[in-house]
Amino acid sequence: MPADAVLVGGGGPAGMEAARGVADLGSRAVLVELRDRLGGTPDSASYSSFTLDRRKATEVLDAARAQVQSNPLIDVRLQTRLTAFEGGAGDFRATLTNIKGETSSVECASVVVATGFDHFDPGRETQMYGYYEYEDVITLVDAERMFSAGKFVRPSTGEPPKQVCFIQCVGSRDRRIGNDYCSKVCCGISSKQAIEVKELVPDCKVFVFYIDMRMYGFWENEIYWKAQEEHRVNFVRGIVTEIIRKGDRLLVKGEDTTMGRPMEVAMDVVILAVGMEPSRGTREVAKVLGVAQDRFGFIAPPENAFDTVATSVPGIFVAGAAAGPKDLDDSISMAGAAAMKAVAMARRLALASG
Amino acid sequence: MPADAVLVGGGGPAGMEAARGVADLGSRAVLVELRDRLGGTPDSASYSSFTLDRRKATEVLDAARAQVQSNPLIDVRLQTRLTAFEGGAGDFRATLTNIKGETSSVECASVVVATGFDHFDPGRETQMYGYYEYEDVITLVDAERMFSAGKFVRPSTGEPPKQVCFIQCVGSRDRRIGNDYCSKVCCGISSKQAIEVKELVPDCKVFVFYIDMRMYGFWENEIYWKAQEEHRVNFVRGIVTEIIRKGDRLLVKGEDTTMGRPMEVAMDVVILAVGMEPSRGTREVAKVLGVAQDRFGFIAPPENAFDTVATSVPGIFVAGAAAGPKDLDDSISMAGAAAMKAVAMARRLALASG
Repeated sequence: MPADAVLVGGGGPAGMEAARGVADLGSRAVLVELRDRLGGTPDSASYSSFTLDRRKATEVLDAARAQVQSNPLIDVRLQTRLTAFEGGAGDFRATLTNIKGETSSVECASVVVATGFDHFDPGRETQMYGYYEYEDVITLVDAERMFSAGKFVRPSTGEPPKQVCFIQCVGSRDRRIGNDYCSKVCCGISSKQAIEVKELVPDCKVFVFYIDMRMYGFWENEIYWKAQEEHRVNFVRGIVTEIIRKGDRLLVKGEDTTMGRPMEVAMDVVILAVGMEPSRGTREVAKVLGVAQDRFGFIAPPENAFDTVATSVPGIFVAGAAAGPKDLDDSISMAGAAAMKAVAMARRLALASG
Repeated sequence: MPADAVLVGGGGPAGMEAARGVADLGSRAVLVELRDRLGGTPDSASYSSFTLDRRKATEVLDAARAQVQSNPLIDVRLQTRLTAFEGGAGDFRATLTNIKGETSSVECASVVVATGFDHFDPGRETQMYGYYEYEDVITLVDAERMFSAGKFVRPSTGEPPKQVCFIQCVGSRDRRIGNDYCSKVCCGISSKQAIEVKELVPDCKVFVFYIDMRMYGFWENEIYWKAQEEHRVNFVRGIVTEIIRKGDRLLVKGEDTTMGRPMEVAMDVVILAVGMEPSRGTREVAKVLGVAQDRFGFIAPPENAFDTVATSVPGIFVAGAAAGPKDLDDSISMAGAAAMKAVAMARRLALASG
């Protein structure tokens, strides 16, 4: 008898949605997650709210987690990794190894890879922004954590800041470090966070130093304009070349590229808009599954423009940021599509083999 | 006995993919299309190739059309519109009317709306670009049609142009005309077309006048950089305020906003990057189905960030540009997700009603 289960790798938003979709269609899903609970990076990094609609991340993730965990058709395996894989579409055999070193074998008809992304480590970029040097240089992720706690302060003093800036494209659009691509979501997240800073510290002046703001689709009118007009966030096209300490503040040096003149502005907090990289899980799973990766390490996109979730191996599909920079909507839509294709293929092959 | 079919409204890329997905899961789809053949706007407007990978549009659409038309589970109704609709999820009854005025009734469990978009009509924008006045002012759509015919010439002379420019954001990001939103795809399409112009007319100088280039994700490294570096396309941040005739050429007047100085450049062809608006079909279908629309007329997005294809009516889902500006990948992923949810709901309700 052919296997009918779908193996889902990764328990973040895309993985949970894929597993839920598989179960919704009446098939069994085995959901494998390395961490000790579901939710993925938005959960482990304590995101406060999502772009575009600013729904609380914990509410959204708690609801998804509850649905997945209570679904009798979904077998959740936490603190577990994929360690071996063989067979062909309709008849794969996966070896799973948990944190105790116990292995188990799972037969599955198809696979959805939803192993997500890692945040770029700003220490790698020659330290030009001083992330590991100055307490008040933080990342979007550190800021989310503060918003989750309902506050926004200078880490060095615990006091509300008077002047804050975001620096865009840290670890993205940068050939020197090999990340040529744009990470797609950072412009939107920074603009959302700029509004959040202004709501928590209304007197604070907030600047966003950008190369260009990629507020595609409804992000423009729903976030960018609100940030500009209702919250008086200052968007400055500029390149930051150096951050140094001056007294108890940070001096941000660079060039205002619209005016073509040098700038030096004192800041209390500098927020680095770090981009997306393939997660360690994505690199690891790609090797075990034998699916092609692009030169950055993301799961290689299919050549067929009419298939957004195919990989180089028939029967193995991909959803979310494992395939490159994606926003939450991309990830959720891809997860639904991947669930559909994974179940359809399983059933087709089961019928064919009688 | 409850209905089990899924009604799919719209036979473009998203509608074809949704119908194919429904059938792939073993359910019946009724695919309703107003035009006399499947393919949607990319087909009726004679697109040459798709962004990002420049696959030939006819190849992609022909393959999808063949798959849909030969699938015994898909009932294709061309030159047909939805004229009445009643019932609830799992038990809808749709009235379809064809071009001859003949009506038929279809029972369906769920619906996928994939009624796409219309191109912005550049005549509406106070005629400032002279689209209906000058033969050599064309749109992205007109340019695609020329590329499909394997040529790129000045419409007024039939000769290869020496100097060509694209003007971005025509009908998008414009509050005066009520289209506040960014149309998401035009920056990418213009950059792709700029490469195509250079390939067909290597000596031609090509300019792109932009507000900012929204080359999100892989569009940056795969298209924008190639256009800049391999094809020497000139991207100029600028605002065009007027186009006038000068001799047998067009004089483009405006401001280079990086340098902060006025510009006047002679062009042989001006290509307007027109944005997306809700299609007439989307407006019509939304009313008949009773689903909520946003203030632009697109099908209103769901409030739940974990559901990208829900509408205000349970059992009715949306895919593609009917829900707002989308690229082809968005549309295809949403269509797969919508197919999954439409079939899952149909089966769940069928099981519940015994």
